[in-house]
Amino acid sequence: MNYQGKRQETIGYDADRDRVWIIDQTRLPGEFVLCDLPDLTAAVRAIADMQVRGAPLIGATAAFGLALEMRRDPSDAALAAGAERLTGARPTAVNLAWAVARVVQHLTPLPPAERAAAALSLSQEICREDESLCSAIGDHGLPLIQAIAEKRDGPVNVLTHCNAGALATLDWGTATAPIYKAFDAGIDVHVWVDETRPRNQGGALTAWELGAHGVPHTVIVDNAGGHLMQHGLVDLCLVGTDRTVASGDVCNKIGTYLKALAAQDNNVPFYVCAPSPSIDWDLSDGLSDIPIEQRDGAEVSWVQGVDRQGQTSEVNVVAAGSAVRNDAFDVTPARLVTGLITERGICSASSEGLAGLFPDLARKAAAVGGAGP
Amino acid sequence: MNYQGKRQETIGYDADRDRVWIIDQTRLPGEFVLCDLPDLTAAVRAIADMQVRGAPLIGATAAFGLALEMRRDPSDAALAAGAERLTGARPTAVNLAWAVARVVQHLTPLPPAERAAAALSLSQEICREDESLCSAIGDHGLPLIQAIAEKRDGPVNVLTHCNAGALATLDWGTATAPIYKAFDAGIDVHVWVDETRPRNQGGALTAWELGAHGVPHTVIVDNAGGHLMQHGLVDLCLVGTDRTVASGDVCNKIGTYLKALAAQDNNVPFYVCAPSPSIDWDLSDGLSDIPIEQRDGAEVSWVQGVDRQGQTSEVNVVAAGSAVRNDAFDVTPARLVTGLITERGICSASSEGLAGLFPDLARKAAAVGGAGP
Repeated sequence: MNYQGKRQETIGYDADRDRVWIIDQTRLPGEFVLCDLPDLTAAVRAIADMQVRGAPLIGATAAFGLALEMRRDPSDAALAAGAERLTGARPTAVNLAWAVARVVQHLTPLPPAERAAAALSLSQEICREDESLCSAIGDHGLPLIQAIAEKRDGPVNVLTHCNAGALATLDWGTATAPIYKAFDAGIDVHVWVDETRPRNQGGALTAWELGAHGVPHTVIVDNAGGHLMQHGLVDLCLVGTDRTVASGDVCNKIGTYLKALAAQDNNVPFYVCAPSPSIDWDLSDGLSDIPIEQRDGAEVSWVQGVDRQGQTSEVNVVAAGSAVRNDAFDVTPARLVTGLITERGICSASSEGLAGLFPDLARKAAAVGGAGP
Repeated sequence: MNYQGKRQETIGYDADRDRVWIIDQTRLPGEFVLCDLPDLTAAVRAIADMQVRGAPLIGATAAFGLALEMRRDPSDAALAAGAERLTGARPTAVNLAWAVARVVQHLTPLPPAERAAAALSLSQEICREDESLCSAIGDHGLPLIQAIAEKRDGPVNVLTHCNAGALATLDWGTATAPIYKAFDAGIDVHVWVDETRPRNQGGALTAWELGAHGVPHTVIVDNAGGHLMQHGLVDLCLVGTDRTVASGDVCNKIGTYLKALAAQDNNVPFYVCAPSPSIDWDLSDGLSDIPIEQRDGAEVSWVQGVDRQGQTSEVNVVAAGSAVRNDAFDVTPARLVTGLITERGICSASSEGLAGLFPDLARKAAAVGGAGP
């Protein structure tokens, strides 16, 4: 993603200042603010309060969080306690548990004195890996957009939900990677951006980063996508995933399932951009196996934006005294998913499809008693 | 609907003050304000700016608007011009054209001197008729809720979209009428209220009126309904309709189609509460025949609510510079509708179903060359 004409990542370690920094995404789109994470508590809070969000970026933040904790106390006890605090910060994102487990596994055999440096280095490696995963997803998704562009005049209309963009990852994004690659290749592409209530990550973040990069896009309410599909105004849906189970069911931001139903009803291809760390090989039934995070109802009642004076402000949109429920994710059954775009290519949303592209990972999961084939 | 313990209608003529008044619904749920409509211009503005909304209430407001205009100028020219201004205020609602045509037809043969009084009297008759239509819809829908309540413990969970409530009509509402009747009959009923972006008529208005009446309810984002249905938390969907075509396709608030898809996918009954004035016997294909109103994108960008100081305020939720599109309605194909609840009973969403309940209206439409069977 470009910001003010130059490449901008979402998290990093500034060696000159010896500080881990993030983009504070709760301030976007009104303000672009970088802030430092001084310690584990700040990392946990950044994840829980969604200053960072998006499965891959949460994973990277957790890794940096452990690295910061190892500076304070590199003991086994601190490592275990830190890992527990981090994995509890957002229960649904599988990348979070994955990144934490990876850091713990890497650090455990090391003498405490070496752990801080090793954790920092591994955190940076996780960042580079994510960037390369996303770039590969972009390369594999690009031909889908290209094929539509070649068949007719006018822009290719892609609908996306939530922010599975550069801001959800280190760079490129997952769902946006094919879009950025298409745009950079000169293809006429236009994006329908679901605003994505309750937190408006689409209207605020996806629209912001597409705008920063120069990609044509239009924000719509979450209610509108089905209507646009009925009228032939959507060529392709591209969404991300917080957790993909071994059978191809996809857990993503609440509302994704409704768009998948509409895509099926209107013969619009519905692709999920799923880097392999989002795959949970131990689960086979998304609907029954994935715990869905219920967040504070205040996220629904209080809408944050920029007021007429240009200040970040909040308004309550729910009648006083009414109860509110706030489920953060839903599950889109594999039968509604045209394909999974992974860093190794595109496969069907099925255990066969996933095992075909990832025989190594599927076998490993099967060996430890998971649901992989 | 009760407000502060007594019956409250949404529009009326106060004979003591010789004034037509409305509830200014743009001030809800923060403030309950009654305001007068002094003339036709005020009535047109009230419809266009959605101080009044909901097909039946729009129709009643239009009738009163013509009555006010007849006081100013009872000529044929003023009648025709007034009718045109009113029908142009909201292009999708068929009740608007229906009410205007009815008033024009009633007044045209009368001497100008009698028109003002006749129009006022007809406006009041339209109000009484709507109240009785809605009450009958409630009576016919009540057994659906009753049957679910008898089969099991716990509340009957009804999902509704937008506000097809008392505030959209004279009283009772359409989609809410069976709910109020069930609640008043002592049935344990709970309502999932879609907030209904962009204007939040669900979270603001439906939640407000259900709360005023004492009906248990929970506000959810528009993205959540499918997820709740997947988990067995919705027993019944009840929605309204702005226009029902002769074949049973239903044009209602944007997003209704997505809920109908989810209901079908989860075997949840999806009923549309359709008073006969919402039926457009001249159209047979909802998707191709109904013009969909595109409203100002600012309705999406600027969210109105109550700020931390208790003041009505607005915040912009869309990234600066991003385009916005705002389609107000979508069409739910008849195949997704379990049944239409009308003032004469429940029928299938089909030309046969509608013609069976309304042979008189269907025949009349067929006689003038409409699409009725």
